[in-house]
Amino acid sequence: MSKSTVYDVNVMFGDCDPAGIVFFPNFSKWMDASSLHFFMACGVPPWRELVKTTGIIGTPLVEIHTRFVRPATYGDALQVRTSVETWSAKTFVQHHQVFKGDQLVCEGRETRAFCVHPEGGRLQAIPVPDFIRQQCS
Amino acid sequence: MSKSTVYDVNVMFGDCDPAGIVFFPNFSKWMDASSLHFFMACGVPPWRELVKTTGIIGTPLVEIHTRFVRPATYGDALQVRTSVETWSAKTFVQHHQVFKGDQLVCEGRETRAFCVHPEGGRLQAIPVPDFIRQQCS
Amino acid sequence: MSKSTVYDVNVMFGDCDPAGIVFFPNFSKWMDASSLHFFMACGVPPWRELVKTTGIIGTPLVEIHTRFVRPATYGDALQVRTSVETWSAKTFVQHHQVFKGDQLVCEGRETRAFCVHPEGGRLQAIPVPDFIRQQCS
Amino acid sequence: MSKSTVYDVNVMFGDCDPAGIVFFPNFSKWMDASSLHFFMACGVPPWRELVKTTGIIGTPLVEIHTRFVRPATYGDALQVRTSVETWSAKTFVQHHQVFKGDQLVCEGRETRAFCVHPEGGRLQAIPVPDFIRQQCS
Repeated sequence: MSKSTVYDVNVMFGDCDPAGIVFFPNFSKWMDASSLHFFMACGVPPWRELVKTTGIIGTPLVEIHTRFVRPATYGDALQVRTSVETWSAKTFVQHHQVFKGDQLVCEGRETRAFCVHPEGGRLQAIPVPDFIRQQCS
Repeated sequence: MSKSTVYDVNVMFGDCDPAGIVFFPNFSKWMDASSLHFFMACGVPPWRELVKTTGIIGTPLVEIHTRFVRPATYGDALQVRTSVETWSAKTFVQHHQVFKGDQLVCEGRETRAFCVHPEGGRLQAIPVPDFIRQQCS
Repeated sequence: MSKSTVYDVNVMFGDCDPAGIVFFPNFSKWMDASSLHFFMACGVPPWRELVKTTGIIGTPLVEIHTRFVRPATYGDALQVRTSVETWSAKTFVQHHQVFKGDQLVCEGRETRAFCVHPEGGRLQAIPVPDFIRQQCS
Repeated sequence: MSKSTVYDVNVMFGDCDPAGIVFFPNFSKWMDASSLHFFMACGVPPWRELVKTTGIIGTPLVEIHTRFVRPATYGDALQVRTSVETWSAKTFVQHHQVFKGDQLVCEGRETRAFCVHPEGGRLQAIPVPDFIRQQCS
C-alpha cells in the first residue's frame, strides 16, 4: 500500500474571488504545498536543503489535471489527501483529493519531475532518485 | 473559423517561486484573466454587470488540464492566445496557449460552465446562453 | 483589557519568492485573515452573512503600516496575534504581530472602516456599529 | 530632479476579493514589481544576474506604509509611478503612486535595503552600493 498524507488548509478571505468562492488556482497552490508536505513527511529534506547535496531544486510540474466538484469559501477548513499514484523513469504522478469534512471539493493529478538547475544552464529533469522513491513508497 | 484573442502578461517578481521560475498556479490565473478578456473582447459585459441582468456570476471551472513546456521568469513578457474549442449544452472548453515570443511556455484546456448563484442557494450551472454563444463564435 | 486572538499560518512554498523567503504582501494577506478571524472569534458573522442583514461588506483598508523584522520561509509555522488598538468614530486600528515561536517576524497596524456598497453606488464608510464594537471590546 | 518610472498593471479577476474590489495586498505586489522595474529602467540588472556578481539578492522590505484612496476592480488599467524619495546609508525609501487615469487609487512608501544572503548564513543588509545609487539618481 502506498503512503498517503493529509495537509490542512484554512481558506482565507483573500483566497476567494468576486463570486465569493475560492479562486481556483489556489487549489493548485494547496496541492503543491501538500506535495511538498508529502515528501517531507516521508523524510525527504526541504528543497532548499536538498539542492545543496544533490542539486535538486524541487519537482516542477509537467502536467496537471484538476476536476472541481464543489465550491469552498473563506472560513472553510479543508484537508488535502496526497499520495503518489505512479512512479515512472523520469516523472511521477501525485494524486490529491481536497475534502471539506467528508465531501470532495476537488481532485487533481500532477505529473512532476525532479529537476536540477545548473548555474547558467537550463532547468533539467533527472531520473527519480532511488533514495527518494524508496523513502516515499 | 473561431474567434481568438491575445492577452498580455508581464511576469512579476512576486509571481515567481524559490526556484526562480513562475509559480505554476499563476499560469491558471493568467488563463482565467485571458478567458474573461476573450468574452469581453467578444462584447460580453464583465461578470459584475452581467449578474444584474441575467444572474450569471461568471464561468466557474469544471475541469482544467495544463501542460507546462518551458519555465518563465520575472521580466518576461508573455502572450496568452485564447479561443473556445468546443461548445456543449451546459459547458464549453477554452483553449489557452501561453507564448514567450514564438516559444510555447504552457498550454491548457479549461472546461467551464456559466453559473448562477441564487440568494441563499447553491452555485448552479445553466445552459450556455444563446446570445453569448453567438457573440463568441 | 482588550480582546486578542491568535491565527495560525503554515508558510507554503508558493508563498515564497526567488530569494527563498516569504513574499512580503503575503504577510498582509495573513493579517487580513487574522483580522476577520478576530471578528468571528468575537461573535461577528462572516461578511457574506453580515451583508444580508446590515449591508456591511467588510472592513476595507484605509491605511497599513508594516515593519518587517525577520524573514520566514516555507515550512515555518507562524502565529498572528491580533487586537484592536483604537476605536474611532468611522475607523479602527488593528494591531497584528506575526511570531515564529517567540521571535517577532513582522508587525503591522491596519486602519480599517466598516463599509457598505449600495447597488450601483460607491463603497462607503459608515460609523463603527455599536453592536460590533461591544462584541469586540 | 529624481528619476521616476511608470509601470502598467491590468487588474485581473483573480486580483479581486469577495467585495469585488482589488484585494489590497496586490497593491503591494504591484509596487514591488514597479520597484524592480524602476531599477531595471535605470540600468540595474535583474536580481538573478546581480546576485552572481555582487551577492545582492534584491531589496527586501524593512517597512511599508500604504494609504488606500479609491477601490479598483478587474478590467481597470492602472499605472504605478515610482521614484526614490530618500537614500540613506543602509536603506532607501521608494515612493509609489497608483493611478487609474488621473485619479489616485493608492499611495505607498517602502523602506528597503540591499541585502546579501551568504550560503548557510542570514539575510544581511549592506550599504547602498554607489554604482546603483548613481545609476538611479
